[in-house]
Amino acid sequence: MTGPNTEDSVVMTLDEVRALARSVLERQGLSASNAAAVAETMVAGERDGCAAHGLYRLLVSAHTITSGKVVLDAEPVATDLAPALVRVDARGGFAQPAFALGRPLLAEKARRCGIAALAINNCVHFAALWPEIEEVCEDGLVGLAFTPSHAWVAPAGGKRPVFGTNPVAFGWPRPGRDPFVFDFATSAVARGEIELHRRAGRTIPEGWGLDPEGRPTTDPAEALAGSMLTFGGHKGSALAAMVELIAGPLIGDMTSRESLAADDGAEASPLGGELLIAIDPAGFLGAGTAEHLERAERLFDEITGQGARLPSQRRYEARRHSLAEGVRIPRALLDDIARI
Amino acid sequence: MTGPNTEDSVVMTLDEVRALARSVLERQGLSASNAAAVAETMVAGERDGCAAHGLYRLLVSAHTITSGKVVLDAEPVATDLAPALVRVDARGGFAQPAFALGRPLLAEKARRCGIAALAINNCVHFAALWPEIEEVCEDGLVGLAFTPSHAWVAPAGGKRPVFGTNPVAFGWPRPGRDPFVFDFATSAVARGEIELHRRAGRTIPEGWGLDPEGRPTTDPAEALAGSMLTFGGHKGSALAAMVELIAGPLIGDMTSRESLAADDGAEASPLGGELLIAIDPAGFLGAGTAEHLERAERLFDEITGQGARLPSQRRYEARRHSLAEGVRIPRALLDDIARI
Repeated sequence: MTGPNTEDSVVMTLDEVRALARSVLERQGLSASNAAAVAETMVAGERDGCAAHGLYRLLVSAHTITSGKVVLDAEPVATDLAPALVRVDARGGFAQPAFALGRPLLAEKARRCGIAALAINNCVHFAALWPEIEEVCEDGLVGLAFTPSHAWVAPAGGKRPVFGTNPVAFGWPRPGRDPFVFDFATSAVARGEIELHRRAGRTIPEGWGLDPEGRPTTDPAEALAGSMLTFGGHKGSALAAMVELIAGPLIGDMTSRESLAADDGAEASPLGGELLIAIDPAGFLGAGTAEHLERAERLFDEITGQGARLPSQRRYEARRHSLAEGVRIPRALLDDIARI
Repeated sequence: MTGPNTEDSVVMTLDEVRALARSVLERQGLSASNAAAVAETMVAGERDGCAAHGLYRLLVSAHTITSGKVVLDAEPVATDLAPALVRVDARGGFAQPAFALGRPLLAEKARRCGIAALAINNCVHFAALWPEIEEVCEDGLVGLAFTPSHAWVAPAGGKRPVFGTNPVAFGWPRPGRDPFVFDFATSAVARGEIELHRRAGRTIPEGWGLDPEGRPTTDPAEALAGSMLTFGGHKGSALAAMVELIAGPLIGDMTSRESLAADDGAEASPLGGELLIAIDPAGFLGAGTAEHLERAERLFDEITGQGARLPSQRRYEARRHSLAEGVRIPRALLDDIARI
């Protein structure tokens, strides 16, 4: 039960969240179409219990907009590059409208060729990748997504930042069910998590960061000034490098170091590109598609049947609750939003 | 310096390694073309200082062949599935001849469509993925490869094996240089590493395995009888699930559980499929390809310039040494090979 409003928080329907996000984004100067696309990822964040990707992002977008690092009325432009490649130039706007333009083009190419890729270029990226991956799965496709960020993360064995938090996301369509989706940073933790420790005056566990001299540290301020570390040691570091390469130089866009340099101290959201890959199961499986997707269900059953969770399970549980009962928003956040 | 033969070891040229591997594989019953393809991955293992993928594998292949789990004279067959998809049916043989048949077809499709995928089906897989990924890079393409194995690995939060050691490999072509390549298991360590601890009577670190009741263990025998764990907690577990899905049901082939069931206690090498994806940088970059590949070099410089290694660096150093001076093979291994 979400229950009634309290002294500290307010219950809102998702339509109310959407309306608030759109109106604030439009007041921040975004064109109506840009505001609508960006608002949807905040609605998805609140709906799925990911407050860090919910209305809180209105504060982040406000800062990025104030810094002049985003084009407010950008109209993305698509280019057909090859039978299985499409590029969408976001023209300096947020990634969401560019993805919305590219999504049906990617799906059409994946169905025709079996596999296809979408490069989003020249965008400001501040959202999670899972809302996009879910849409790829809604199109009946297997999806992968990658994006660099700002160079905050040192390579394994190194001492200076090279990589961004460089998320990797994957989705698998499950007919009649929520898709299997994961979306994780290749950094050990989100940068915001270290920031929360700093504000709370707590130390961070070993393995999260290095100080500015490249030495392991448990001091969150030192890690923020120095380097974050990847998850999983040299394996996570290898994945972070892959994300830099395939969502940076491969698509002609910035690496995390270049993005941070372009930011030039503004502390705005990362600039650059994103690579999405979509695969049509029917391309490999033809008439056997339903049978083999059903075999995947047995794999999921075997995971959940032993008490383990699927990566997206928590989000879907929150979603069902939010759709029925709305979401609870802290009054302090609403006050902060009202002040911008 | 590799130096002279000793009481314990023999120095061999790579041609001698190749000739030995081929002749033993042919004596094991493989057709000449199959033996030649399989031998090359053993030559690559010895050449690159990965003894576990070198001549030692003749003992592994001997066991798999004796168990009747591999078709000795398999002739792989390619099928064009879609503009960007090709399937090679290995017809129950080892994966290497199937990859050799599929490689030019994948490259041709990637160049024409921008991105393409190759499914290898119905193969016996016992080799590392990096030799294949290096060949994709030699074709000027970015490569990804995935294969399930046998269900030895529990999902994060679980207590029973579901996943294989499920490697992920990636390669980035570097004109005039060795490619950037990584190839790692999504398990915390290789199964052989736990076996080595068992033989040496040593405990294993926490985080490597669970006992048959699903409790954390430091006893290698218990972990071998129970479950291995993934690297990187829930993130590694998510990647392992992805490998099961995209190199299993997506291509109409076995999951690691199905492969272990098909093995039926024979303890032969895993049966099943492999998925390779190739992307042509020129598809995205056109006339700007050289410029953007050069930007990737700056990323590599920034990694190596702070004392960190690129994932493939150790292998390339061993390779240069082996090509110049040959490789050192333990006499005990040669004796074991002579006995089979």
